[in-house]
Amino acid sequence: MSDDLNILILSCGTRNKIVQYFKKELNGRGLVIATDCSYLAPALYEADEQYIVPKMNDEGYLDEILSICKNNNIKAVFSLIDPELSLLAKHKQSFIDIGTVPIVSELDVIEICFDKYKMFEFLVQNGLPTVNSYIDKEQFFSDVEAGVIDYPVFVKPIKGSSSNNINKVSTKEEVEFLFSRFDNLMIQEFMDGIEYGADVYIDMISSEPVAIFIKEKVKMRAGETDKSISFKDEELVELIKKFIKGTGLKGIIDVDIFKVNGEYYISEVNPRFGGGYPHAYESGVNVPELIINNIYENVNDNVIGHYEEGVSMMKFNEVKILDPKEIAST
Amino acid sequence: MSDDLNILILSCGTRNKIVQYFKKELNGRGLVIATDCSYLAPALYEADEQYIVPKMNDEGYLDEILSICKNNNIKAVFSLIDPELSLLAKHKQSFIDIGTVPIVSELDVIEICFDKYKMFEFLVQNGLPTVNSYIDKEQFFSDVEAGVIDYPVFVKPIKGSSSNNINKVSTKEEVEFLFSRFDNLMIQEFMDGIEYGADVYIDMISSEPVAIFIKEKVKMRAGETDKSISFKDEELVELIKKFIKGTGLKGIIDVDIFKVNGEYYISEVNPRFGGGYPHAYESGVNVPELIINNIYENVNDNVIGHYEEGVSMMKFNEVKILDPKEIAST
Repeated sequence: MSDDLNILILSCGTRNKIVQYFKKELNGRGLVIATDCSYLAPALYEADEQYIVPKMNDEGYLDEILSICKNNNIKAVFSLIDPELSLLAKHKQSFIDIGTVPIVSELDVIEICFDKYKMFEFLVQNGLPTVNSYIDKEQFFSDVEAGVIDYPVFVKPIKGSSSNNINKVSTKEEVEFLFSRFDNLMIQEFMDGIEYGADVYIDMISSEPVAIFIKEKVKMRAGETDKSISFKDEELVELIKKFIKGTGLKGIIDVDIFKVNGEYYISEVNPRFGGGYPHAYESGVNVPELIINNIYENVNDNVIGHYEEGVSMMKFNEVKILDPKEIAST
Repeated sequence: MSDDLNILILSCGTRNKIVQYFKKELNGRGLVIATDCSYLAPALYEADEQYIVPKMNDEGYLDEILSICKNNNIKAVFSLIDPELSLLAKHKQSFIDIGTVPIVSELDVIEICFDKYKMFEFLVQNGLPTVNSYIDKEQFFSDVEAGVIDYPVFVKPIKGSSSNNINKVSTKEEVEFLFSRFDNLMIQEFMDGIEYGADVYIDMISSEPVAIFIKEKVKMRAGETDKSISFKDEELVELIKKFIKGTGLKGIIDVDIFKVNGEYYISEVNPRFGGGYPHAYESGVNVPELIINNIYENVNDNVIGHYEEGVSMMKFNEVKILDPKEIAST
């Protein structure tokens, strides 16, 4: 039992494919166990075992997760939702003490990733091309006057996700209106170009990026990549490597990039499995395998660019039906 | 060949489950053929045969669809997108002339369904409870003063879909702002209650509703039901039957209902397969079978209420990967 390579996926939600991929890669070497705070999370039923847990911010949550890890001899744990990444990073040592490796980036870089303005400042400070952003609307208005930036722009929450509350805005009045109505907004340049996403695995032992899968995003839905086409460009790979170096990003991350007038601009980073990761996996970029290698304390070989260009990915809905009798027994 | 029961699904998009269900029901009695204007429509590859066609508004589109019907001995055709329903209804006779039955409602009721204000007027005229709506903002303001309606309200396009551009609004200033910025808006009462969806099949021969599946919508995503729980209520069934009588609605439709303070209110109708239909099918409400019976010129038995209550449905993503070589050969 104690040699089993059991993996715990927290807040699995609707990410059935991630559970499937880990089960496939483990291939009997261990169990995939999943948690969610709702019994209506379909990925729960894809896992070998499942736990309905309290909400992340409820008292005792961390202790419950730690005890699931201990009782199930969990070798590695990761989460699929943003707010939980900070929790895992903050309490990394508590997990390591009971023999569980959290697959997660360092806390300080996670906090930067969730604050779009901090990320903007970080990229600027490091000389990396990014999307022009403002939290000071007066500074923005004066830059408009000076011809530094022009409408349209996006007005969005500094800490937002899933494209919630993003407004494309064309006048000063609209900017004023939105700022008067909501707090913690930022103004971001409208990038009229091609959008790319990169699924990157940064080895947990060597801290080097060992896999980078780039896709052109062809269609988004509810803030998630719905259709994409695999893409290769050495220049973009180098930009991503340069960005990652020394950040403390680790494990699987998802980087959003724009290309405008032939130039790449980094826009956002999600330090977890992105919603478009199935495209990478189905194209041979096998992150579960890289994670399992790391759990076995093996440094991964560099497999950057080991995929075919021009392969399309399209999402569609599958359904899980749950009988009332099954609910009672979970 | 001429006895084959071939079915054509237009603008199949990401509705793989619909294609699967028809293939399963036909069970070799005929082919399921699908069209879309994009090769990135995953449901195309689920069908027995597929056609990439021009965009619906391009010249020659209708002729191309008619010729696909003729060449493939298509017995029934339907569409999965709203704008195409009017086209099918308008040219119903051209399809019938070549031996193809369009599974579609009458043109006038389709036009009412796509205009949220016309639908409001229709429901009011017929004495059916609905969601209070305004296109005249001055009338709305004076009703607010008179205490007839109160904030918050929704401001949304009269002809919109997928929850695009819907704003929840709490002040007169915001209403004024939105009306100054966009045309063709309406103001709709905010319904603070439970939302239900009903998948209804109205027999193509008898014009009677013969199947009604009701689900409580637990979670929406991008305007589509993401999680739902099956539900039964005789009162709601009677309201739906009363609404449908004499409307000219036919075939499969999807009705949205709110329940506030114990009262039901009809809000919207989509005269096609709704995005949540898989819940009905997986619960035994087999609309492909009812359609096939109608194609064989059999009137369907009433199967209203033939399903279990309390069964949950949860959607998750499946992916279709398409190699560049496959694109070339389609």
